[in-house]
Amino acid sequence: MVNLNDILGYKNRKIYQNDDYFSFSLDSVILANFCSIRKRDKYILDLCSGNGIVPFIVSLRSSCHIDGVEIQKELFDLAVSSCELNNLSEQISFFNCDIKDFLNKENSEKYDLITCNPPFFKYSEDSFINLGYEKTVARHEVLINLEEVVKISSSLLKSGGNLAMVHRTDRLLDVLFAFKKYNIEPKRIMFIYNKLSKGSTLFFIEGQKNGNVGLKIEKPFVVYNEDNSYTEEYSTITEEVLK
Amino acid sequence: MVNLNDILGYKNRKIYQNDDYFSFSLDSVILANFCSIRKRDKYILDLCSGNGIVPFIVSLRSSCHIDGVEIQKELFDLAVSSCELNNLSEQISFFNCDIKDFLNKENSEKYDLITCNPPFFKYSEDSFINLGYEKTVARHEVLINLEEVVKISSSLLKSGGNLAMVHRTDRLLDVLFAFKKYNIEPKRIMFIYNKLSKGSTLFFIEGQKNGNVGLKIEKPFVVYNEDNSYTEEYSTITEEVLK
Repeated sequence: MVNLNDILGYKNRKIYQNDDYFSFSLDSVILANFCSIRKRDKYILDLCSGNGIVPFIVSLRSSCHIDGVEIQKELFDLAVSSCELNNLSEQISFFNCDIKDFLNKENSEKYDLITCNPPFFKYSEDSFINLGYEKTVARHEVLINLEEVVKISSSLLKSGGNLAMVHRTDRLLDVLFAFKKYNIEPKRIMFIYNKLSKGSTLFFIEGQKNGNVGLKIEKPFVVYNEDNSYTEEYSTITEEVLK
Repeated sequence: MVNLNDILGYKNRKIYQNDDYFSFSLDSVILANFCSIRKRDKYILDLCSGNGIVPFIVSLRSSCHIDGVEIQKELFDLAVSSCELNNLSEQISFFNCDIKDFLNKENSEKYDLITCNPPFFKYSEDSFINLGYEKTVARHEVLINLEEVVKISSSLLKSGGNLAMVHRTDRLLDVLFAFKKYNIEPKRIMFIYNKLSKGSTLFFIEGQKNGNVGLKIEKPFVVYNEDNSYTEEYSTITEEVLK
Protein backbone atom coordinates (compact mmCIF):
# COMPACT_ATOMS: atom_id res chain seq x y z
CA MET A 1 0.00 0.00 0.00
CA VAL A 2 1.24 3.42 -0.91
CA ASN A 3 1.13 5.81 2.01
CA LEU A 4 0.22 9.01 0.24
CA ASN A 5 1.06 11.40 3.02
CA ASP A 6 2.22 14.27 0.91
CA ILE A 7 1.70 15.75 -2.52
CA LEU A 8 3.96 18.28 -4.15
CA GLY A 9 3.15 20.35 -7.18
CA TYR A 10 5.37 21.61 -9.97
CA LYS A 11 3.69 23.64 -12.66
CA ASN A 12 0.75 21.40 -13.62
CA ARG A 13 2.25 18.19 -12.20
CA LYS A 14 1.23 16.63 -8.88
CA ILE A 15 3.79 14.32 -7.36
CA TYR A 16 3.37 12.01 -4.39
CA GLN A 17 6.16 11.83 -1.88
CA ASN A 18 6.67 10.13 1.44
CA ASP A 19 8.98 11.66 3.99
CA ASP A 20 9.67 8.23 5.48
CA TYR A 21 11.58 7.48 2.31
CA PHE A 22 13.30 10.18 0.37
CA SER A 23 11.56 13.38 -0.52
CA PHE A 24 11.27 15.36 -3.62
CA SER A 25 14.29 17.55 -3.78
CA LEU A 26 15.24 20.70 -5.60
CA ASP A 27 18.31 18.89 -6.95
CA SER A 28 15.96 16.85 -9.07
CA VAL A 29 13.99 19.91 -10.19
CA ILE A 30 17.19 21.61 -11.33
CA LEU A 31 18.47 18.40 -12.97
CA ALA A 32 15.24 18.02 -14.96
CA ASN A 33 15.64 21.59 -16.21
CA PHE A 34 19.44 21.42 -16.71
CA CYS A 35 19.58 18.40 -19.03
CA SER A 36 19.70 19.01 -22.79
CA ILE A 37 16.78 17.64 -24.80
CA ARG A 38 17.26 17.69 -28.56
CA LYS A 39 14.53 17.69 -31.18
CA ARG A 40 15.72 14.36 -32.58
CA ASP A 41 15.67 12.59 -29.18
CA LYS A 42 13.21 9.71 -28.86
CA TYR A 43 13.97 7.82 -25.66
CA ILE A 44 14.84 9.25 -22.25
CA LEU A 45 15.73 7.25 -19.15
CA ASP A 46 15.92 8.32 -15.51
CA LEU A 47 18.04 6.14 -13.22
CA CYS A 48 17.70 6.13 -9.41
CA SER A 49 14.33 7.65 -10.14
CA GLY A 50 12.92 7.73 -6.59
CA ASN A 51 9.34 9.03 -6.67
CA GLY A 52 9.73 9.87 -10.36
CA ILE A 53 10.16 13.62 -10.00
CA VAL A 54 12.66 13.93 -12.86
CA PRO A 55 10.52 12.13 -15.48
CA PHE A 56 7.45 14.14 -14.44
CA ILE A 57 9.29 17.46 -14.96
CA VAL A 58 11.12 16.30 -18.10
CA SER A 59 7.73 15.38 -19.58
CA LEU A 60 6.84 19.09 -19.43
CA ARG A 61 9.74 19.76 -21.83
CA SER A 62 9.48 16.81 -24.20
CA SER A 63 7.07 14.36 -25.71
CA CYS A 64 9.75 11.61 -25.82
CA HIS A 65 8.96 8.32 -24.15
CA ILE A 66 10.52 8.34 -20.69
CA ASP A 67 11.49 5.30 -18.63
CA GLY A 68 12.33 5.49 -14.94
CA VAL A 69 14.10 2.83 -12.88
CA GLU A 70 13.83 2.65 -9.09
CA ILE A 71 14.97 -0.25 -6.94
CA GLN A 72 12.95 0.63 -3.82
CA LYS A 73 9.41 -0.74 -4.07
CA GLU A 74 7.80 1.96 -1.94
CA LEU A 75 9.28 4.78 -4.02
CA PHE A 76 8.41 2.97 -7.26
CA ASP A 77 4.81 2.66 -6.02
CA LEU A 78 4.67 6.43 -5.40
CA ALA A 79 6.00 7.06 -8.92
CA VAL A 80 3.37 4.78 -10.48
CA SER A 81 0.59 6.44 -8.47
CA SER A 82 1.75 9.91 -9.55
CA CYS A 83 1.94 8.70 -13.14
CA GLU A 84 -1.73 7.68 -13.01
CA LEU A 85 -2.71 10.87 -11.18
CA ASN A 86 -1.15 12.98 -13.96
CA ASN A 87 -2.47 10.77 -16.79
CA LEU A 88 1.07 10.16 -18.00
CA SER A 89 1.04 6.37 -18.17
CA GLU A 90 1.37 6.42 -21.95
CA GLN A 91 4.45 8.65 -21.94
CA ILE A 92 6.23 7.44 -18.80
CA SER A 93 6.98 3.84 -17.69
CA PHE A 94 8.51 2.96 -14.35
CA PHE A 95 10.50 -0.20 -13.62
CA ASN A 96 11.04 -1.58 -10.13
CA CYS A 97 14.44 -3.21 -10.44
CA ASP A 98 18.14 -2.86 -9.90
CA ILE A 99 19.64 -0.82 -12.76
CA LYS A 100 22.21 -3.60 -13.16
CA ASP A 101 19.31 -5.88 -14.14
CA PHE A 102 17.63 -3.21 -16.28
CA LEU A 103 20.42 -3.35 -18.86
CA ASN A 104 19.65 -6.05 -21.42
CA LYS A 105 19.94 -6.68 -25.15
CA GLU A 106 16.68 -4.89 -25.86
CA ASN A 107 17.59 -1.55 -24.31
CA SER A 108 21.35 -1.55 -24.86
CA GLU A 109 22.31 1.66 -26.71
CA LYS A 110 18.64 2.66 -26.82
CA TYR A 111 18.58 6.01 -25.02
CA ASP A 112 19.23 9.55 -26.29
CA LEU A 113 19.36 11.00 -22.78
CA ILE A 114 19.84 9.53 -19.32
CA THR A 115 19.27 11.57 -16.18
CA CYS A 116 20.45 10.43 -12.77
CA ASN A 117 20.38 11.79 -9.21
CA PRO A 118 22.47 8.99 -7.68
CA PRO A 119 23.35 8.20 -4.04
CA PHE A 120 25.86 10.91 -3.09
CA PHE A 121 27.83 9.40 -0.24
CA LYS A 122 30.40 6.65 -0.15
CA TYR A 123 29.17 3.70 1.85
CA SER A 124 30.73 2.84 5.15
CA GLU A 125 29.56 0.53 7.92
CA ASP A 126 28.19 3.40 9.99
CA SER A 127 26.15 4.84 7.11
CA PHE A 128 23.01 3.30 8.56
CA ILE A 129 23.34 4.84 11.99
CA ASN A 130 21.30 8.01 11.51
CA LEU A 131 18.96 7.05 8.69
CA GLY A 132 16.62 4.15 8.09
CA TYR A 133 17.37 1.54 5.45
CA GLU A 134 15.40 3.29 2.71
CA LYS A 135 16.99 6.72 3.14
CA THR A 136 20.43 5.17 3.45
CA VAL A 137 19.99 3.29 0.17
CA ALA A 138 18.86 6.51 -1.54
CA ARG A 139 21.73 8.62 -0.20
CA HIS A 140 24.64 6.18 0.22
CA GLU A 141 26.33 3.90 -2.29
CA VAL A 142 24.99 0.73 -0.66
CA LEU A 143 23.39 -1.02 -3.64
CA ILE A 144 25.25 0.75 -6.43
CA ASN A 145 28.22 3.07 -6.70
CA LEU A 146 29.10 5.92 -9.01
CA GLU A 147 31.31 3.92 -11.33
CA GLU A 148 28.62 1.26 -11.81
CA VAL A 149 26.00 3.92 -12.56
CA VAL A 150 28.23 5.54 -15.21
CA LYS A 151 29.28 2.22 -16.73
CA ILE A 152 25.68 1.02 -17.08
CA SER A 153 24.57 4.44 -18.37
CA SER A 154 27.22 4.28 -21.06
CA SER A 155 25.93 0.87 -22.18
CA LEU A 156 22.34 2.13 -22.24
CA LEU A 157 23.16 5.30 -24.23
CA LYS A 158 23.26 5.59 -27.99
CA SER A 159 26.53 6.91 -29.36
CA GLY A 160 26.04 10.68 -29.17
CA GLY A 161 23.52 10.37 -26.32
CA ASN A 162 23.86 12.46 -23.17
CA LEU A 163 24.19 11.59 -19.49
CA ALA A 164 23.07 14.35 -17.09
CA MET A 165 23.83 13.94 -13.41
CA VAL A 166 23.87 15.88 -10.16
CA HIS A 167 26.50 15.15 -7.52
CA ARG A 168 28.34 16.63 -4.55
CA THR A 169 31.23 18.88 -5.54
CA ASP A 170 33.65 16.91 -3.37
CA ARG A 171 33.04 13.98 -5.74
CA LEU A 172 33.78 16.04 -8.89
CA LEU A 173 37.00 14.24 -9.77
CA ASP A 174 35.39 10.82 -9.27
CA VAL A 175 32.58 11.83 -11.62
CA LEU A 176 34.92 13.24 -14.29
CA PHE A 177 37.18 10.20 -14.19
CA ALA A 178 34.24 7.79 -14.35
CA PHE A 179 32.75 9.68 -17.31
CA LYS A 180 36.07 9.57 -19.18
CA LYS A 181 36.64 5.89 -18.32
CA TYR A 182 33.32 4.91 -19.92
CA ASN A 183 33.64 7.18 -22.99
CA ILE A 184 31.25 9.86 -21.81
CA GLU A 185 32.95 13.15 -22.65
CA PRO A 186 32.14 15.88 -20.11
CA LYS A 187 30.52 18.78 -22.02
CA ARG A 188 28.83 21.08 -19.45
CA ILE A 189 29.17 21.63 -15.73
CA MET A 190 27.14 24.05 -13.60
CA PHE A 191 28.31 24.61 -10.05
CA ILE A 192 25.85 25.48 -7.28
CA TYR A 193 27.01 28.01 -4.70
CA ASN A 194 24.92 28.62 -1.58
CA LYS A 195 26.26 32.17 -1.61
CA LEU A 196 28.66 34.00 -3.89
CA SER A 197 31.02 34.23 -0.92
CA LYS A 198 31.08 30.44 -0.37
CA GLY A 199 32.53 27.45 -2.15
CA SER A 200 30.39 25.10 -4.21
CA THR A 201 28.75 22.07 -2.61
CA LEU A 202 26.82 20.63 -5.53
CA PHE A 203 27.20 20.47 -9.30
CA PHE A 204 25.33 19.39 -12.40
CA ILE A 205 27.17 17.75 -15.26
CA GLU A 206 26.25 16.57 -18.73
CA GLY A 207 28.47 14.40 -20.88
CA GLN A 208 28.10 12.91 -24.35
CA LYS A 209 28.86 9.30 -25.20
CA ASN A 210 31.76 9.29 -27.71
CA GLY A 211 31.49 13.10 -27.83
CA ASN A 212 34.22 15.46 -28.93
CA VAL A 213 36.44 17.08 -26.32
CA GLY A 214 35.17 20.50 -25.19
CA LEU A 215 33.93 21.30 -21.69
CA LYS A 216 32.03 24.44 -20.72
CA ILE A 217 31.68 25.66 -17.15
CA GLU A 218 28.30 27.35 -17.16
CA LYS A 219 27.30 30.42 -15.22
CA PRO A 220 27.23 29.81 -11.47
CA PHE A 221 23.90 29.00 -9.86
CA VAL A 222 23.68 30.96 -6.60
CA VAL A 223 20.98 30.16 -4.02
CA TYR A 224 21.18 33.01 -1.49
CA ASN A 225 22.04 36.69 -1.81
CA GLU A 226 24.51 37.99 0.75
CA ASP A 227 21.57 39.35 2.84
CA ASN A 228 20.22 35.75 3.09
CA SER A 229 17.28 36.37 0.75
CA TYR A 230 16.87 33.95 -2.15
CA THR A 231 18.35 34.92 -5.50
CA GLU A 232 15.96 35.55 -8.38
CA GLU A 233 17.23 32.42 -10.11
CA TYR A 234 16.43 30.21 -7.13
CA SER A 235 13.11 31.96 -6.41
CA THR A 236 11.95 31.32 -9.95
CA ILE A 237 12.40 27.58 -9.45
CA THR A 238 10.96 27.37 -5.95
CA GLU A 239 7.94 29.48 -6.88
CA GLU A 240 6.98 26.72 -9.26
CA VAL A 241 7.16 24.14 -6.47
CA LEU A 242 4.01 24.13 -4.36
CA LYS A 243 3.54 22.09 -1.24
CA MET B 1 69.78 45.72 -24.05
CA VAL B 2 66.55 45.90 -22.14
CA ASN B 3 64.06 48.22 -23.74
CA LEU B 4 62.37 49.65 -20.66
CA ASN B 5 59.37 51.12 -22.35
CA ASP B 6 56.91 50.62 -19.53
CA ILE B 7 56.83 50.27 -15.78
CA LEU B 8 53.92 48.89 -13.82
CA GLY B 9 53.42 49.19 -10.10
CA TYR B 10 51.80 46.82 -7.65
CA LYS B 11 51.73 47.94 -4.03
CA ASN B 12 55.37 48.95 -3.46
CA ARG B 13 56.79 46.93 -6.36
CA LYS B 14 57.84 48.45 -9.70
CA ILE B 15 57.92 45.98 -12.57
CA TYR B 16 59.32 46.54 -16.05
CA GLN B 17 57.36 45.23 -18.97
CA ASN B 18 57.66 45.45 -22.70
CA ASP B 19 54.56 45.33 -24.82
CA ASP B 20 56.55 43.89 -27.71
CA TYR B 21 56.85 40.72 -25.68
CA PHE B 22 54.21 39.74 -23.22
CA SER B 23 52.80 42.15 -20.73
CA PHE B 24 52.08 41.97 -17.10
CA SER B 25 48.68 40.45 -16.77
CA LEU B 26 46.05 40.32 -14.10
CA ASP B 27 46.09 36.53 -14.35
CA SER B 28 49.54 36.65 -12.78
CA VAL B 29 48.44 39.09 -10.08
CA ILE B 30 45.57 36.81 -9.11
CA LEU B 31 47.79 33.70 -9.27
CA ALA B 32 50.35 35.31 -6.92
CA ASN B 33 47.55 36.02 -4.45
CA PHE B 34 45.71 32.71 -4.95
CA CYS B 35 48.57 30.32 -4.18
CA SER B 36 48.87 28.95 -0.63
CA ILE B 37 52.05 29.88 1.24
CA ARG B 38 52.61 27.97 4.47
CA LYS B 39 54.74 29.11 7.40
CA ARG B 40 57.06 26.13 7.01
CA ASP B 41 57.72 26.78 3.31
CA LYS B 42 61.32 27.63 2.38
CA TYR B 43 61.68 27.50 -1.40
CA ILE B 44 59.26 28.82 -4.00
CA LEU B 45 59.65 28.49 -7.77
CA ASP B 46 57.86 30.31 -10.59
CA LEU B 47 57.91 28.60 -13.98
CA CYS B 48 57.23 30.42 -17.29
CA SER B 49 58.05 33.49 -15.24
CA GLY B 50 57.96 36.10 -18.02
CA ASN B 51 58.91 39.50 -16.61
CA GLY B 52 58.86 38.05 -13.08
CA ILE B 53 55.57 39.49 -11.96
CA VAL B 54 54.57 36.45 -9.88
CA PRO B 55 57.81 36.31 -7.81
CA PHE B 56 57.65 40.07 -7.20
CA ILE B 57 54.11 39.84 -5.81
CA VAL B 58 54.72 36.58 -3.93
CA SER B 59 57.68 38.29 -2.22
CA LEU B 60 55.16 40.68 -0.63
CA ARG B 61 53.56 37.67 1.09
CA SER B 62 56.62 35.63 2.04
CA SER B 63 60.29 35.86 2.90
CA CYS B 64 61.02 32.47 1.28
CA HIS B 65 63.70 32.35 -1.36
CA ILE B 66 62.02 32.51 -4.77
CA ASP B 67 63.45 31.25 -8.06
CA GLY B 68 61.99 32.19 -11.43
CA VAL B 69 62.66 30.45 -14.76
CA GLU B 70 62.08 32.14 -18.12
CA ILE B 71 63.27 30.83 -21.47
CA GLN B 72 62.98 34.12 -23.41
CA LYS B 73 66.10 36.27 -22.92
CA GLU B 74 64.34 39.62 -23.34
CA LEU B 75 61.73 38.80 -20.68
CA PHE B 76 64.42 37.38 -18.37
CA ASP B 77 66.37 40.65 -18.76
CA LEU B 78 63.29 42.65 -17.74
CA ALA B 79 62.87 40.42 -14.67
CA VAL B 80 66.51 40.89 -13.64
CA SER B 81 66.25 44.66 -14.10
CA SER B 82 63.10 44.81 -11.98
CA CYS B 83 64.78 42.65 -9.34
CA GLU B 84 67.59 45.20 -9.03
CA LEU B 85 65.18 48.14 -9.13
CA ASN B 86 63.25 46.67 -6.18
CA ASN B 87 66.38 45.60 -4.27
CA LEU B 88 65.18 42.00 -4.25
CA SER B 89 68.27 40.30 -5.66
CA GLU B 90 68.93 38.50 -2.36
CA GLN B 91 65.44 37.01 -2.17
CA ILE B 92 64.69 36.34 -5.84
CA SER B 93 66.88 34.63 -8.47
CA PHE B 94 65.99 34.38 -12.13
CA PHE B 95 67.26 31.70 -14.53
CA ASN B 96 67.26 32.11 -18.30
CA CYS B 97 66.78 28.54 -19.47
CA ASP B 98 64.30 25.95 -20.64
CA ILE B 99 62.49 24.47 -17.62
CA LYS B 100 63.38 21.04 -19.00
CA ASP B 101 67.05 21.96 -18.40
CA PHE B 102 66.33 23.59 -15.03
CA LEU B 103 65.49 20.24 -13.45
CA ASN B 104 68.68 18.66 -12.14
CA LYS B 105 69.88 16.61 -9.16
CA GLU B 106 70.39 19.71 -7.04
CA ASN B 107 66.86 21.07 -7.26
CA SER B 108 64.91 17.82 -7.64
CA GLU B 109 62.23 17.69 -4.89
CA LYS B 110 63.48 21.03 -3.54
CA TYR B 111 60.41 23.26 -3.73
CA ASP B 112 57.52 23.77 -1.32
CA LEU B 113 55.47 25.73 -3.84
CA ILE B 114 55.59 26.12 -7.61
CA THR B 115 53.56 28.76 -9.42
CA CYS B 116 53.03 28.71 -13.17
CA ASN B 117 51.17 30.81 -15.74
CA PRO B 118 51.91 28.55 -18.72
CA PRO B 119 51.22 29.01 -22.44
CA PHE B 120 47.44 28.55 -22.75
CA PHE B 121 46.91 27.51 -26.33
CA LYS B 122 47.66 24.28 -28.13
CA TYR B 123 50.23 24.79 -30.83
CA SER B 124 49.30 24.51 -34.45
CA GLU B 125 51.15 25.57 -37.56
CA ASP B 126 49.14 28.78 -37.91
CA SER B 127 49.79 29.85 -34.30
CA PHE B 128 52.42 32.31 -35.52
CA ILE B 129 50.19 34.11 -37.99
CA ASN B 130 48.92 36.95 -35.81
CA LEU B 131 51.64 37.25 -33.16
CA GLY B 132 55.40 37.62 -33.30
CA TYR B 133 57.68 34.77 -32.23
CA GLU B 134 57.99 35.98 -28.63
CA LYS B 135 54.29 36.39 -27.96
CA THR B 136 53.53 33.09 -29.66
CA VAL B 137 56.04 31.28 -27.43
CA ALA B 138 54.49 32.89 -24.34
CA ARG B 139 50.90 32.04 -25.32
CA HIS B 140 51.16 28.84 -27.35
CA GLU B 141 52.60 25.46 -26.45
CA VAL B 142 55.50 25.82 -28.87
CA LEU B 143 58.47 25.11 -26.61
CA ILE B 144 56.68 23.24 -23.83
CA ASN B 145 53.24 21.77 -23.32
CA LEU B 146 50.98 21.36 -20.31
CA GLU B 147 51.90 17.75 -19.59
CA GLU B 148 55.64 18.56 -19.63
CA VAL B 149 55.13 21.52 -17.28
CA VAL B 150 53.21 19.36 -14.79
CA LYS B 151 55.64 16.43 -15.06
CA ILE B 152 58.67 18.65 -14.42
CA SER B 153 56.86 20.51 -11.62
CA SER B 154 56.13 17.22 -9.92
CA SER B 155 59.83 16.30 -10.02
CA LEU B 156 60.81 19.71 -8.63
CA LEU B 157 58.27 19.61 -5.77
CA LYS B 158 58.85 18.12 -2.36
CA SER B 159 56.31 15.51 -1.34
CA GLY B 160 53.50 17.64 0.15
CA GLY B 161 54.51 20.67 -1.92
CA ASN B 162 51.92 22.62 -3.92
CA LEU B 163 51.58 23.46 -7.61
CA ALA B 164 49.44 26.56 -8.34
CA MET B 165 48.50 27.28 -11.93
CA VAL B 166 46.18 29.42 -14.02
CA HIS B 167 44.69 28.09 -17.24
CA ARG B 168 41.83 28.47 -19.66
CA THR B 169 38.65 26.74 -18.55
CA ASP B 170 38.39 24.84 -21.83
CA ARG B 171 41.63 23.06 -20.79
CA LEU B 172 40.28 22.08 -17.34
CA LEU B 173 40.14 18.35 -18.04
CA ASP B 174 43.67 18.35 -19.50
CA VAL B 175 44.94 20.08 -16.37
CA LEU B 176 43.14 17.73 -13.97
CA PHE B 177 44.30 14.63 -15.82
CA ALA B 178 47.90 15.87 -16.00
CA PHE B 179 47.89 16.67 -12.26
CA LYS B 180 46.57 13.19 -11.42
CA LYS B 181 49.00 11.49 -13.80
CA TYR B 182 51.98 13.06 -12.05
CA ASN B 183 50.71 12.56 -8.48
CA ILE B 184 49.60 16.11 -7.87
CA GLU B 185 46.22 15.84 -6.16
CA PRO B 186 43.89 18.73 -7.11
CA LYS B 187 42.90 20.51 -3.87
CA ARG B 188 41.41 23.91 -4.79
CA ILE B 189 39.91 25.40 -7.94
CA MET B 190 38.62 28.96 -8.37
CA PHE B 191 36.70 29.72 -11.54
CA ILE B 192 36.75 33.21 -13.06
CA TYR B 193 33.50 34.43 -14.57
CA ASN B 194 33.45 37.65 -16.61
CA LYS B 195 29.88 38.11 -15.43
CA LEU B 196 27.59 36.06 -13.21
CA SER B 197 25.42 35.51 -16.29
CA LYS B 198 28.30 34.03 -18.33
CA GLY B 199 30.31 30.82 -18.33
CA SER B 200 33.84 30.66 -16.95
CA THR B 201 36.80 31.31 -19.26
CA LEU B 202 39.70 31.04 -16.81
CA PHE B 203 40.47 29.11 -13.63
CA PHE B 204 43.08 28.87 -10.92
CA ILE B 205 44.04 25.50 -9.49
CA GLU B 206 46.29 24.31 -6.69
CA GLY B 207 47.30 20.70 -6.20
CA GLN B 208 49.48 18.94 -3.66
CA LYS B 209 52.14 16.39 -4.56
CA ASN B 210 51.14 13.05 -3.02
CA GLY B 211 48.26 14.87 -1.28
CA ASN B 212 45.10 13.26 0.03
CA VAL B 213 41.97 13.27 -2.11
CA GLY B 214 39.68 16.24 -1.40
CA LEU B 215 38.92 19.00 -3.89
CA LYS B 216 37.24 22.30 -3.03
CA ILE B 217 35.63 24.56 -5.60
CA GLU B 218 36.15 28.00 -4.13
CA LYS B 219 33.80 30.96 -4.36
CA PRO B 220 33.48 32.28 -7.89
CA PHE B 221 35.60 35.26 -8.89
CA VAL B 222 33.41 37.61 -10.93
CA VAL B 223 34.95 40.48 -12.92
CA TYR B 224 31.97 42.60 -14.01
CA ASN B 225 28.63 43.40 -12.43
CA GLU B 226 25.62 43.03 -14.71
CA ASP B 227 25.69 46.83 -15.32
CA ASN B 228 29.26 46.45 -16.72
CA SER B 229 30.92 48.12 -13.72
CA TYR B 230 33.76 46.20 -12.09
CA THR B 231 32.94 44.07 -9.05
CA GLU B 232 34.40 45.07 -5.71
CA GLU B 233 36.61 41.98 -5.76
CA TYR B 234 38.14 42.88 -9.10
CA SER B 235 38.42 46.60 -8.27
CA THR B 236 40.40 45.79 -5.14
CA ILE B 237 43.02 43.99 -7.21
CA THR B 238 43.18 46.49 -10.06
CA GLU B 239 43.37 49.47 -7.70
CA GLU B 240 46.66 48.06 -6.51
CA VAL B 241 47.99 47.91 -10.05
CA LEU B 242 49.24 51.31 -11.21
CA LYS B 243 50.42 52.05 -14.70
